[in-house]
Amino acid sequence: MLTNVEHIGIAVKNLAASDALFTQLFKVPPYKHEEVPAEGVTTSFFQINQTKIELLEATRDDSPITRFLEKKGEGIHHIAFEVDDIVAEMERLKSEGFILLNETPKPGADNKLVCFLHPKGTHGVLVELCQTMENGH
Amino acid sequence: MLTNVEHIGIAVKNLAASDALFTQLFKVPPYKHEEVPAEGVTTSFFQINQTKIELLEATRDDSPITRFLEKKGEGIHHIAFEVDDIVAEMERLKSEGFILLNETPKPGADNKLVCFLHPKGTHGVLVELCQTMENGH
Repeated sequence: MLTNVEHIGIAVKNLAASDALFTQLFKVPPYKHEEVPAEGVTTSFFQINQTKIELLEATRDDSPITRFLEKKGEGIHHIAFEVDDIVAEMERLKSEGFILLNETPKPGADNKLVCFLHPKGTHGVLVELCQTMENGH
Repeated sequence: MLTNVEHIGIAVKNLAASDALFTQLFKVPPYKHEEVPAEGVTTSFFQINQTKIELLEATRDDSPITRFLEKKGEGIHHIAFEVDDIVAEMERLKSEGFILLNETPKPGADNKLVCFLHPKGTHGVLVELCQTMENGH
């Protein structure tokens, strides 16, 4: 089950400029910054009730965020849904014809295991599944 | 203050097909359908914890959703944040340089008063502010 909109990812050109803008919009600053080298991004997180807003800036030319900015420009990049059991959910969705972008869960920002679904199979929406990792795993 | 991600809007070509797909993804069907003639859209709503997913199909050629589909294709269209006092929030954001797409709150889907912020002023993100209307107003 997808139990919560855990976060919404927004692709930005310049994290510092967007931190300032979204701080003005939300009247709350980001509560943390985190680099995810495997994805070629650096991120900041804002908390709005039970959902986070994640800003993503590319740190290298082959980052998925670089390609997204070239194709679509700045804007909403993905929706991440919390799941209780990411492996079970990945199996269920794969068996129902959704296209997984990674076949095993991989580490994402914010101490999560994540899997992305290809937007081709979700009417253009890049969907992330995420499950919080236990400490030490 | 923006107090909650009230909903995420997704532009789709065919509401019936997307209803079926997102029902499969969420394992929950939409809890309602609603037409918003002023916006030229027909919508369906899914509830995921405290956030709704709103699918939007255009009902006429000059709908903002028709233009969005032509430019960007199906996908995430906007993020709507709940506010306690939409008029006060519109004044605050306008005074800080955000560009309002409507100068007074207007009726939206789901018994809300809404205002959109121009994506030019929000790094490409179409932001909706919404406030639930009291009964009879």
